Amino acid sequence: MTNYKPKGRLTAKEYIDGILKGDRVILSRGITIVESNLESDKKLAKEIIQAILPHSGNSIRIGITGVPGVGKSTFIEAFGKYLIGQGHKVGILSIDPSSQRSKGSILGDKTRMEELANMEDAYIRPSATGDTLGGVANKTGESMLLCEAAGYDIILIETVGVGQSETAVHGMTDFFLLLMLSGAGDELQGIKKGIMEMADMVVINKADGDNIKKSEMARRQYQNALHIFPLSESGWSPVVTTASAIKNIGIDTVWEEISKYKKQVDENGYFIKNRNHQQIKWMYNNINEELKQLFYGSKNIADHLSDLEKDIISSKISPVEAAQNIIQEFKNSI
Amino acid sequence: MTNYKPKGRLTAKEYIDGILKGDRVILSRGITIVESNLESDKKLAKEIIQAILPHSGNSIRIGITGVPGVGKSTFIEAFGKYLIGQGHKVGILSIDPSSQRSKGSILGDKTRMEELANMEDAYIRPSATGDTLGGVANKTGESMLLCEAAGYDIILIETVGVGQSETAVHGMTDFFLLLMLSGAGDELQGIKKGIMEMADMVVINKADGDNIKKSEMARRQYQNALHIFPLSESGWSPVVTTASAIKNIGIDTVWEEISKYKKQVDENGYFIKNRNHQQIKWMYNNINEELKQLFYGSKNIADHLSDLEKDIISSKISPVEAAQNIIQEFKNSI
Repeated sequence: MTNYKPKGRLTAKEYIDGILKGDRVILSRGITIVESNLESDKKLAKEIIQAILPHSGNSIRIGITGVPGVGKSTFIEAFGKYLIGQGHKVGILSIDPSSQRSKGSILGDKTRMEELANMEDAYIRPSATGDTLGGVANKTGESMLLCEAAGYDIILIETVGVGQSETAVHGMTDFFLLLMLSGAGDELQGIKKGIMEMADMVVINKADGDNIKKSEMARRQYQNALHIFPLSESGWSPVVTTASAIKNIGIDTVWEEISKYKKQVDENGYFIKNRNHQQIKWMYNNINEELKQLFYGSKNIADHLSDLEKDIISSKISPVEAAQNIIQEFKNSI
Repeated sequence: MTNYKPKGRLTAKEYIDGILKGDRVILSRGITIVESNLESDKKLAKEIIQAILPHSGNSIRIGITGVPGVGKSTFIEAFGKYLIGQGHKVGILSIDPSSQRSKGSILGDKTRMEELANMEDAYIRPSATGDTLGGVANKTGESMLLCEAAGYDIILIETVGVGQSETAVHGMTDFFLLLMLSGAGDELQGIKKGIMEMADMVVINKADGDNIKKSEMARRQYQNALHIFPLSESGWSPVVTTASAIKNIGIDTVWEEISKYKKQVDENGYFIKNRNHQQIKWMYNNINEELKQLFYGSKNIADHLSDLEKDIISSKISPVEAAQNIIQEFKNSI
């Protein structure tokens, strides 16, 4: 282990020891290193991750998604408090696709989970930023490993249900929870195709007051719809329940279902199989991203591609031949 | 245009003229060239495709899928005969994932569509074979262009609803039709997740005799289920109907719905937008396949990858670092 120490940085050993002791301040500083794009930080991050790796993984990783307005923050606040009440330590991260451009974050505003943020056994980290979804996902994934090494045994990873980030979250979690509202149909227009099919559980939120009846109807509709879809490899049939995060109703049921799921996938071997599969896939996703970067990152290639697109649209060249030409150009250039 | 003529081959001009005149024998021989892996044939294929490209595209491309036993051949026979009765020329191709290994073909057995196969205005071509799905899809896609140039104004592309080939078919067609059976739920276990969401239309086949009531129930269930899923960019709400291909019931309705769809997407501009998008994507799919081939095709890389997979599973290395290492190795080798 090297002993260099750039300004404002601890040594690798200090980060590692601090994280393994569960020191929240050091955990935060460690995640900052993981998120950093400085070359010296990247080296440091490698050492930290390498060392904490064998201490990671002892958690249930839960992905939570839903369109804006569905009450994700309120739900996570209620759910997090419930889990802490049950003796758990809860780490809360997010993948925010918008952070790629705006450098903003859906979780930046910690005040939306004020009570939870102040609890000893909760750790909330705003979304990492980056140029690509792949980069952001790597940072969130590695931050998750750090949280686990620091003793957080439940990790909640939040995202907005409107883009590709759900696939990233689904790819790094054990259980995928979709928050919805009643008024079946309309509100789903904001949810991208395919997200429903990833859900292990759908929770109809805001099921309180005048909404109770409508929510129960929506619950039945979604339950029927999900039933005609094929079973996932986990052998688990997705459950649909109603809840009111703001009134703290139905939150315990969510945890009961997740516990049932965990028991089932532990017994049938899917839990570990899926974890291994996710780890391997994480590597391949990175490789494939890098390969594309090698190719598409070249200015010549980019210019040529936009010409080829025009020629394809005007039937001057076939897509297959266009691809062959540009790959040949790439091979000649390397 | 070159004038070379390997044994048993026509000149490029002869293929081109024959195809544009609608000569079925020459069309068949042209498709053989497109499917061939001989270097001299590949050059010839390029010339043919380049020349017929401006004459392609004037068709409705319909993807048809469903698990084995759903009655695809019977349906295509009934549907094809109906379309010819309406004055159309129908080309029938398939993408068969199993042909990658067995070199067999679901459509090889033309006798299953005996009447249709003997009609002047139908052209049935068994599935191309190849080592990769991408390669098979290229061949089917280019064969489709040749059929269009030969005057076939409706192209049916068949596949089995159990693998990745549906995405390939969906990516090269204008309308995607899923054949199902009644007995909602169970039979869907054979259909891969995500295929339902691609469907523009679901047809419950074998809705005859004792099956009529069950089929109508299934129709309503699927219709409800599809309604709570988000609308596709085409603005089209998927329709569910019942049909009996063997009794020739409901076949006209299928065509009516496709015609309605065509009218709608012509008017809202989605038809041409989607076609352009598919062409461009076809190029990028080929590029990305080639890039992967460059990388994964190397024996050193393959050996190293399998070691890295083991190290990741045993927490010896993080997926991100593993990817960085092997990409570095690749860069050093080129």
